[in-house]
Amino acid sequence: MFILIGLWQIGSGQSHPNLVLTADGIAEINKGAKAPLFEAELEKAKQLVNASIAEGIIVPIPKDLGGGYTHEQHKRNYNSMYMAGAIYQLTNESKYADFIKDMLDEYVELYPTLPIHPTKKSYSTGKIFWQCLNEANWLVYTAQAYDCIYEYLSEEERAIYESKLFKPFADFLSIENPKFFNRVHNHSTWGNAALGMIGLAMDDEELINRALYGLPISEKNDLAKDNDGGFIYEKGRAQAGFFAQIDNAFSPDGYYEEGPYYQRYAMTPFMVFALALHHKKPELKIFEYRDGILLKAVDALINQTDQSGTFFPINDAQKGMSIQAKSVVSAVNIAYAVSGNPQLLSVANIQQQVLLDQNGFAVARDLNSGKAQAIQKKSIELRDGKNGDKGALGIIRTKKNEEELALVFKYTSQGLGHGHYDKLSYSFYQGETEVLQDYGAARWVNIDQKAGGRYLPENKTWAKQTIAHNTLVVDQISHFKGKYDLANEAHSEPVYFDCSDPKFQVVIAKEENAYSDVDFQRSLLMVEINSKPFVIDLLTVRSDQDHQYDLPFHFQEHFMQSSVELSSQNPPTILGEKHGYQHLYHLATGQIEDEMMQLTWFKNNHVYSVSCLAEEGDEMILARIGANDPQFNLRTDDLAIHRKKSKQNAVFLSVIEPHGDYSPVTELPQDIYSSVEKIELKFHDEEYTVFSVQLKGEKAQTFMLANKDNNPDSKHSVKVEGEKLQWTGMAAYQK
Amino acid sequence: MFILIGLWQIGSGQSHPNLVLTADGIAEINKGAKAPLFEAELEKAKQLVNASIAEGIIVPIPKDLGGGYTHEQHKRNYNSMYMAGAIYQLTNESKYADFIKDMLDEYVELYPTLPIHPTKKSYSTGKIFWQCLNEANWLVYTAQAYDCIYEYLSEEERAIYESKLFKPFADFLSIENPKFFNRVHNHSTWGNAALGMIGLAMDDEELINRALYGLPISEKNDLAKDNDGGFIYEKGRAQAGFFAQIDNAFSPDGYYEEGPYYQRYAMTPFMVFALALHHKKPELKIFEYRDGILLKAVDALINQTDQSGTFFPINDAQKGMSIQAKSVVSAVNIAYAVSGNPQLLSVANIQQQVLLDQNGFAVARDLNSGKAQAIQKKSIELRDGKNGDKGALGIIRTKKNEEELALVFKYTSQGLGHGHYDKLSYSFYQGETEVLQDYGAARWVNIDQKAGGRYLPENKTWAKQTIAHNTLVVDQISHFKGKYDLANEAHSEPVYFDCSDPKFQVVIAKEENAYSDVDFQRSLLMVEINSKPFVIDLLTVRSDQDHQYDLPFHFQEHFMQSSVELSSQNPPTILGEKHGYQHLYHLATGQIEDEMMQLTWFKNNHVYSVSCLAEEGDEMILARIGANDPQFNLRTDDLAIHRKKSKQNAVFLSVIEPHGDYSPVTELPQDIYSSVEKIELKFHDEEYTVFSVQLKGEKAQTFMLANKDNNPDSKHSVKVEGEKLQWTGMAAYQK
Repeated sequence: MFILIGLWQIGSGQSHPNLVLTADGIAEINKGAKAPLFEAELEKAKQLVNASIAEGIIVPIPKDLGGGYTHEQHKRNYNSMYMAGAIYQLTNESKYADFIKDMLDEYVELYPTLPIHPTKKSYSTGKIFWQCLNEANWLVYTAQAYDCIYEYLSEEERAIYESKLFKPFADFLSIENPKFFNRVHNHSTWGNAALGMIGLAMDDEELINRALYGLPISEKNDLAKDNDGGFIYEKGRAQAGFFAQIDNAFSPDGYYEEGPYYQRYAMTPFMVFALALHHKKPELKIFEYRDGILLKAVDALINQTDQSGTFFPINDAQKGMSIQAKSVVSAVNIAYAVSGNPQLLSVANIQQQVLLDQNGFAVARDLNSGKAQAIQKKSIELRDGKNGDKGALGIIRTKKNEEELALVFKYTSQGLGHGHYDKLSYSFYQGETEVLQDYGAARWVNIDQKAGGRYLPENKTWAKQTIAHNTLVVDQISHFKGKYDLANEAHSEPVYFDCSDPKFQVVIAKEENAYSDVDFQRSLLMVEINSKPFVIDLLTVRSDQDHQYDLPFHFQEHFMQSSVELSSQNPPTILGEKHGYQHLYHLATGQIEDEMMQLTWFKNNHVYSVSCLAEEGDEMILARIGANDPQFNLRTDDLAIHRKKSKQNAVFLSVIEPHGDYSPVTELPQDIYSSVEKIELKFHDEEYTVFSVQLKGEKAQTFMLANKDNNPDSKHSVKVEGEKLQWTGMAAYQK
Repeated sequence: MFILIGLWQIGSGQSHPNLVLTADGIAEINKGAKAPLFEAELEKAKQLVNASIAEGIIVPIPKDLGGGYTHEQHKRNYNSMYMAGAIYQLTNESKYADFIKDMLDEYVELYPTLPIHPTKKSYSTGKIFWQCLNEANWLVYTAQAYDCIYEYLSEEERAIYESKLFKPFADFLSIENPKFFNRVHNHSTWGNAALGMIGLAMDDEELINRALYGLPISEKNDLAKDNDGGFIYEKGRAQAGFFAQIDNAFSPDGYYEEGPYYQRYAMTPFMVFALALHHKKPELKIFEYRDGILLKAVDALINQTDQSGTFFPINDAQKGMSIQAKSVVSAVNIAYAVSGNPQLLSVANIQQQVLLDQNGFAVARDLNSGKAQAIQKKSIELRDGKNGDKGALGIIRTKKNEEELALVFKYTSQGLGHGHYDKLSYSFYQGETEVLQDYGAARWVNIDQKAGGRYLPENKTWAKQTIAHNTLVVDQISHFKGKYDLANEAHSEPVYFDCSDPKFQVVIAKEENAYSDVDFQRSLLMVEINSKPFVIDLLTVRSDQDHQYDLPFHFQEHFMQSSVELSSQNPPTILGEKHGYQHLYHLATGQIEDEMMQLTWFKNNHVYSVSCLAEEGDEMILARIGANDPQFNLRTDDLAIHRKKSKQNAVFLSVIEPHGDYSPVTELPQDIYSSVEKIELKFHDEEYTVFSVQLKGEKAQTFMLANKDNNPDSKHSVKVEGEKLQWTGMAAYQK
């Protein structure tokens, strides 16, 4: 944690602008230090705003959903006003202030005449936009534009904007939409920040307090749900407003319950409103609140990315979203202003964008003067839950040559309405390549042709289901039967996290709630054998009833070879009727007769293998996503399923190996065969599991795990094949 | 065409080295001009060779296929010798000469003892390698290494290498393998060059003549075929050897019958041997031969690439092969040495590799001093056939913002054994994105798990078949019934090529041989309407029998929306039993009732649409590759088929539109709907076709085509809806 250096706090005074961009900040920028990235940003903004000015003010009657014309035009408007405000402050050219004024004049005419938006598709429909969420975006940015021209306006003009536009706008978002405003949810964080920002700009203490502490809680909406199936109110919560968001949204490690895709989006209102409070209400010490949680959250967000800065798409997340997003630019710029952490400059260097204020300027200036330090992404456990007691996300990292390997182990809570039913699932990355994927969400955000850009039906029927993830499925039924109300009550249990030895990193977690009569525990190991990295996945399952156990491997690209003889079906059948199985084509089945099942696949010019301990009666199923998808909404990726039929207790032991490379230009393959020769389960009972992995031409290496006692100082011993193995802590190895 | 400036010819004398790297070249390099790319290349080569020296000489008993250990080690050996030769000449350090000597000592021991390679999988099995082709590679590179240490060796040493290794090696490749040596084929070009290079190094006129003019032609192998199904001998050919290759391999425009993937590979022996002849036998004026055909061939090769320099994968071609390939580096470096064309420096700049000789040095030096000029890739027609009379490849180019659009129209001859059955097919590119793909070959070159890296069975059953391409399929039967012997006799007919107006580019070709009773003609137009680029595809079909006509669109990535109501099948059926249809899953069918069928798809964050003129009874079929593929060798890409059932004459009229963009980071869509409102066929008979395309909110634009008279000066007139339309040349438009 970096100390709070409060760059812009002291002496910021109360003259406008004083929210995010401040009068002192302008003075700092005007000193003229070199900051090429900032200058480029200003130039770009000028071009955009000049084009808007040339085009004239366009404030259409609201009509469209996201992606539609009126929606996009109103978005453009608040962005233009926001940029024009900054440009006006930086250049003193009145045409930019006039542009904002002219725009506000149109809104002040239009807004009071507006009924509820005609679409009525949201649990909280807006007026300018189809949902209050976008309405809050508008106010967060417009408040900043207003702050920038506050002193340019006459007192009468301000009185008109405030009484006819901003105050009714704020009341609509809060008093008239308590479902939207009073939740603990990213939507409401935007709502709180919107009221807070305009309240600070107007010096309206009542609005500021409403933003900080919410409306009084009403119990009557207790069981209402939002469009995504999430509860509006949780039982027993007594708080609302911005502080309640900070208290509830993040774990003590800065993890955001819904995952990084939504955290990225939520960070803007947290950071922007916090910075405005930092400037205008320093007595709140907002960046020190909860032990500096807002800065921890920025760190946590940056840590939940692959080597290219793309977010791990856990829960509902559209793939491809990354630290390049504007919201992360603002979070990083503000975090840098507050903390001075030079690693943030390296993130900014990837982003190649900065804010149009003194925070962006400082980032650009310090980048230019060479102050950046490399980002250190280490293995990390991010606890989930307000108190850090609702599971965790474990990220294990190592390197293969120049590429980062990241193993993302999800033993969190449900993740609210955007959560997927995938307890103890993992995804695995090499550089930018998804070795074993998390499907992400079934959604094209803002793509009108695909259900208006909203979540597709297949998000619920496929993407959220357990089989869409790399984790155990019992009897073809999803965890918690795919029921949110059940899942939301539970979380997985972290058991052990020890990544202190980079060549032997171990994370263990267990799940006892997903199925009524099946418990499972998963140990993920990132180990180095013979100077090569391997993931070892030990999944032990316990039940006193017979069940079918499926463990999928979402390998996604091209099947190369399998050790199992596959009999393929032409045309394929469909694997099941519900819980996601109805979306899977059953391409081929292999009856396992060997003690090992091996699969090799090709992806992005890399070659991977998984080698699984197998027993007679096990099956390997090759499946492809895409069945029962009449609108062709799903990606048609491939997966393999390791199936154990009619078992009570079971052990899945898999070794995942990123071994090979290929270039279509040189056409030279490198290490395209798995190096795993043999996997042996040497000992297994409730207390201990001992197994060995033998590479081709090498001696076997033995791994010992204690299954119950997670005290790192406990000493263990077990006799295997006449030899007494002894170790300390939950996991160890012996050459 | 650039004039031949013969940089290294004058005064190169006859002292060794004098093949590619020359003594004069060394002197030029030693003058010390700055050439950073060359210095980096030398440094890299030193590291590689030093590592080989440290490892010791490894010359294993031949055993493996391509990709296997002994194969790769022998490849490494000739590459190391080749680099060591250059390094020795550049540094005078004797350890590099000794390395080559030590290596040759091993080969001179081993080679005379070797039987035919144990694999026996090639029509011309080698001794060190599984095919003579690799054997010839070995000799081309080893000859250069030998040339570099020629004067370091004693006369006795030379006598031993030449009599015990090189001469028998050359005889084996030629006299003992006439099937390999005496063809007109890229394999034989390597064979000819191998003999020529070692002949020049040894000053053995007999070998040189054998290389230049081949062995006497024997008729007895007339009907033999190679592993890929191509004929070894064509009927009536009277010549063999290097000159015969140059005479036969290229069209007068430098087009190579098999396409750019194989041309890329073939260019090395052409250019390397030609340069050695240029140095040692200047009287042959090899680079002026056939009007400078070798340099034209390099130009043609560079033109057959997308914006990133990746080759268009027509015929048998593994996707991803590009101008980055080493063989293109050598072609470009040698072409620059001969022509001084500064556009080649821009290609070298993309390659970021140069040869380790005076040619690579000159490229690096001139790049460094800023002499590069931008590559001008224009619309171009590359005639096929030795005399330019066997069809052509038409490439139409334009730009969309910063991205290059390239429409590749294939109306060539068959392309020998690597040809696909796809007369009048096209593929379409935006930047690096395949908008409508050519599937390429079904093969993973050198990937052992996939049939040892050779062509897969599905190459024949799918990739070569007509339905795997964007062209007409009649009655679900491939062109020429998929029979090579028939296809090889024929070629399509170029009709018209006029790309002089960048906003209205037209290429027309016809095919009268692919089906016995169906003729078809295709007009591809790249036009600009309302400042946006569109491809218009008019395919007219004529028969006096009833047939089913299929026109596929290989859109490949994600289906977004269709104007036709699709009824999908779960699970899918299979579309047919042969000619590639057995590999297609039939996902859905739409019965067309409107006058237009529209399909929108998403690929690489672009959005595309095709709008087709339709009539009642037409069907739209959505299909996916992957059926009857027990080893999962095929990519499972999607395609749409526009089907007309039971027709004699038919008109397919399609407008392809690269309209939209999306970013998963900003989540902002741009222009994701097609702008085509209506397509109308206004007039159609044997002589003329008139149609209009109307964009949303715009007036219709009328296009007029003469179907028969291809005289660009002919005047045409036709009365449509009471209006007399008049134009000159085959195609015109009227707003």
